[in-house]
Amino acid sequence: MNDTRERVVVTEVGLRDGLQSIARIMSTDDKRRWIDAAYAAGVRHMEVASFVPARLLPQMADAADVVAHALSYRDLGVSALVPNLQGARYALEAGVQRIVAPISVSAAHSVANVRKTPAEMIDAFAAMRELIDSASSTCGHRVVLIAGLSTVFGCTLQGAVPYADIAAIARAAVQAGADVIALGDTTGEATPRQVGEVIELVRDVAGERLRSLHFHDTRGLALANTLVALQHGIREFDASLAGLGGCPHAPGATGNVNTEDLVFMLDSMGYDTGIDITRLLASREVLAQALPGEPLYGYLARAGLPKQAADAGSARASAEYPQSSRRSQSSVSQALP
Amino acid sequence: MNDTRERVVVTEVGLRDGLQSIARIMSTDDKRRWIDAAYAAGVRHMEVASFVPARLLPQMADAADVVAHALSYRDLGVSALVPNLQGARYALEAGVQRIVAPISVSAAHSVANVRKTPAEMIDAFAAMRELIDSASSTCGHRVVLIAGLSTVFGCTLQGAVPYADIAAIARAAVQAGADVIALGDTTGEATPRQVGEVIELVRDVAGERLRSLHFHDTRGLALANTLVALQHGIREFDASLAGLGGCPHAPGATGNVNTEDLVFMLDSMGYDTGIDITRLLASREVLAQALPGEPLYGYLARAGLPKQAADAGSARASAEYPQSSRRSQSSVSQALP
Repeated sequence: MNDTRERVVVTEVGLRDGLQSIARIMSTDDKRRWIDAAYAAGVRHMEVASFVPARLLPQMADAADVVAHALSYRDLGVSALVPNLQGARYALEAGVQRIVAPISVSAAHSVANVRKTPAEMIDAFAAMRELIDSASSTCGHRVVLIAGLSTVFGCTLQGAVPYADIAAIARAAVQAGADVIALGDTTGEATPRQVGEVIELVRDVAGERLRSLHFHDTRGLALANTLVALQHGIREFDASLAGLGGCPHAPGATGNVNTEDLVFMLDSMGYDTGIDITRLLASREVLAQALPGEPLYGYLARAGLPKQAADAGSARASAEYPQSSRRSQSSVSQALP
Repeated sequence: MNDTRERVVVTEVGLRDGLQSIARIMSTDDKRRWIDAAYAAGVRHMEVASFVPARLLPQMADAADVVAHALSYRDLGVSALVPNLQGARYALEAGVQRIVAPISVSAAHSVANVRKTPAEMIDAFAAMRELIDSASSTCGHRVVLIAGLSTVFGCTLQGAVPYADIAAIARAAVQAGADVIALGDTTGEATPRQVGEVIELVRDVAGERLRSLHFHDTRGLALANTLVALQHGIREFDASLAGLGGCPHAPGATGNVNTEDLVFMLDSMGYDTGIDITRLLASREVLAQALPGEPLYGYLARAGLPKQAADAGSARASAEYPQSSRRSQSSVSQALP
């Protein structure tokens, strides 16, 4: 059977965003096991580390080693988060294919997070662009530079984030050389109608460079927001295995949308993620062993696949179970008037 | 300021569906307190009981008393679930305004749940219609009869539910005299694309009688499914305070979509529910006191309202915060190129 389904890219960011938000340090070996398990489940895009000073974020001290392991898979897209020029140098040396530079739209958050105003961060971003371009001539492939706009949908410090600011930062990022614009709901405040409005707003200034969305599930709306983004043409989403990073004691730091639940929804809608949901669910065991006591979230992990999906016999087939309902043999319609 | 927002009806069904799914019996006084608190928060539609034999469901032994209390609020719409003709007699005597009769589309579920095939349940439904019509001439108002189609989106016993069966049951329910067709995702298996397809399918046979959807949040998709239903013109939804009824040990019995999270989403999208989200959140305290130890779910209850919503100062204003982002004073756009 030919697969004519539309592709949606799910980028596993748990190794970066998830781990960054929890106190416990995951060993380099466990990170390698996580990458192996995700790859085995069909994940082909991962954001595996941040290149930041180890004294600020000990969790990421092994970034270069983790990137090296991820790069051993030839068809795995390997991204890293990089907040400044020095980090970009390290990331390029490590050989990442995509660099995500966070640019807060909220000035309050930007200063708190990277001690730069948004305008200063745009300057740093332009410098990264220059560095990447000069490195490309020597390393042979062009590294993709992603402007990871953060606090796009609201900010715990500032409150509402004006649409004019989102448009201004997106425009500035494009002018500074962003290959891709990604929109991040850093604080889990995005709501469905807003998501549609912001996508159209940013598309007006960034066009096809607007590619990716990054939701946190703080208020239970991450999948509804994803649905709206799909309807507005977005086909790339970040997610975290087991929703890692959720912290019931710090509302501002809840985890990314759960990878398994996201893949289940995308499967059910007929999108092709390339990910085997059963293997993905099984890969949670890596986290359970590596991070004992850390809460692992997820609806699907608790409830299991529906019988109709399980009946279909495979993740590939389960992707079509709503459609298969149309073809199923009727059990009652003959008995009715 | 005139309120020109579109109305969405949220029916609190926790007193029926939520309580029915938990072991602990809530006292009649506590049920009255719950109704009082929900009414104070602005809830104007409640399904408050099932009229079933007390030996089968002791939780509902006080149905007539609970209905009587709910009816003391003149502008509160009071519904009850009724599985058979005897139950309909009791419900009419108690004075309910709306009777919801469950009709499983899955034959396996129907037999297990009410010991009738779907076709036999349609016959019972027609008998309820006759009873209601003859009672209407004496009681002075016409009681609304709702066909609560259940296991519409999948069945834990049968698996996939054929679309032909959904259409056949919906058509039969209309022919048997349903005023309203409601679609229930009894087992929490609905997925977004399927929801849109099923709504259109049922609308083809039931027209404007298709009015209401009932989601369980078993796989985290209840709000995404609600979003699709809104896009397909549905303006009435059932929900349960604190997602009551969720049971982590019985995947098939997870709770309804959480009322607070649903109202938050609807508010954020500019719909008018008439419900004050702050008071609704406070009403969880009734459950915490009446059902100590029972798990209370909800994203909003854990994370709180976003700062941008809280800044807006009231539930009425918070409904507009995404819009208000457009008008907010820019803090960064002047500083950028």
